[in-house]
Amino acid sequence: MSQRSFSAACCIIGDEILNGKTRDSNANYLAKYLFELGVDLKRIETIADDYEAIEETIKRLSSQHDLVFTSGGIGPTHDDITYAALAKAFNLPLKLDEETCIRMEKVSRAKFPDWSLTEERKRMAIFPEPSEKLRNLDDLWVPVVVVNKNVHVLPGIPRLFESLLDSLKPHFKALMGEHQSYHRVQIATKLQEGKIAPFLTELQEQCSSKHIKIGSYPNWGEGKDGARVVVSVVGKNEQDVNAIGDQIVQGIDGWITKGKL
Amino acid sequence: MSQRSFSAACCIIGDEILNGKTRDSNANYLAKYLFELGVDLKRIETIADDYEAIEETIKRLSSQHDLVFTSGGIGPTHDDITYAALAKAFNLPLKLDEETCIRMEKVSRAKFPDWSLTEERKRMAIFPEPSEKLRNLDDLWVPVVVVNKNVHVLPGIPRLFESLLDSLKPHFKALMGEHQSYHRVQIATKLQEGKIAPFLTELQEQCSSKHIKIGSYPNWGEGKDGARVVVSVVGKNEQDVNAIGDQIVQGIDGWITKGKL
Repeated sequence: MSQRSFSAACCIIGDEILNGKTRDSNANYLAKYLFELGVDLKRIETIADDYEAIEETIKRLSSQHDLVFTSGGIGPTHDDITYAALAKAFNLPLKLDEETCIRMEKVSRAKFPDWSLTEERKRMAIFPEPSEKLRNLDDLWVPVVVVNKNVHVLPGIPRLFESLLDSLKPHFKALMGEHQSYHRVQIATKLQEGKIAPFLTELQEQCSSKHIKIGSYPNWGEGKDGARVVVSVVGKNEQDVNAIGDQIVQGIDGWITKGKL
Repeated sequence: MSQRSFSAACCIIGDEILNGKTRDSNANYLAKYLFELGVDLKRIETIADDYEAIEETIKRLSSQHDLVFTSGGIGPTHDDITYAALAKAFNLPLKLDEETCIRMEKVSRAKFPDWSLTEERKRMAIFPEPSEKLRNLDDLWVPVVVVNKNVHVLPGIPRLFESLLDSLKPHFKALMGEHQSYHRVQIATKLQEGKIAPFLTELQEQCSSKHIKIGSYPNWGEGKDGARVVVSVVGKNEQDVNAIGDQIVQGIDGWITKGKL
């Protein structure tokens, strides 16, 4: 199996995150999702509902990463400009997608009998072309539109973002073939971070060639079980990760923990 | 008073956010803080504990924004490289700061009588020079180091990040002078987003010259009080914001709400 990793970037689009009205949860959901798939999430960028910001950011991220995920800005109101901004970014025309209209009408009428396909609602079915539409859920009309081959456009509403992402798991697994997922071991210790630093530095140097990353995260005061620091070991070879974890347990008078920081 | 706004960017540095181990809270704290100060947070970028990523990102953000804030990577272990990466980014030497050592020793000895200033701990007092050190708290030894005049280096531990940021409020208020803060009004409605879209689009066009931004945020299903959508109005002139808020209450059969999405 290859050690080569897919790289990914995430772009959260929304004024409401930048002005503090809303705390984003989608980036963290995506981070956990990609970690489990074995994809390297390299960066998360949060930007405004602004043409220039979306164009510059997505063009850059799309050229530098295997997969890009956007969240937000695909509703029916004036501040929803993600599809249009992506069309500008990649110099593509916008086109009404008939199949999406049919699905939107069917799902919405079932909930609101007097629902009708207004011009504003049609905006939610106008996509840059060419683009791929991934439809893996029967009860949601909104597709995951894939622009420029790697930019996956997702809605900002967390429940929709999460459902659609979950529905794409088989799609990404097929895409990645024999690709390995990540393993993580966490070790807690009562020692202070400054005391364990030399040991961890040396160990990280020893195991860098094995594609293993050791992280050190102090608690402020004492955490659960009196832990002052939690050390994390991440890598794709489960056996290697466990072996390094055991070495750290010995070296810093620690214990394996499942606890959060 | 001037309508000109200070712009800001935030850079969260940490593998633990990108691999999903930790959900960042510092960016949201900073977003609310800057909103209250009247500063425009333009983007948040989350990157790995990686020299190249830190250099590229901070150089770009520092050149494009009035204020930049970083979070994370300033502890004593091998994965804490923020100060060193900033020194590389701005081609500055690194220097041990005596005053920080003295404060670190004093505060740490009070808690741990056998504490000593090891080489690893000294790393936490080695800063790019020249840099400004803001010390507005007596009980915390870590200063906010300001590199390249606008990059404010803060720790990743949320309690420290928040305390230090709070301590800087007078500093930023003095910096900004007669600068105005933001006001926000939120209006909830039981109508669907697709129905209120034309009204909001027209109103946004009418009030753009007043530097007012109208955002529309749907609930998934029904929210509190049966609200399907929350509309937000943000601007620096309180009277204007309230007047537009009242217009929206009328126009979308809504009510003023303090509720979250």
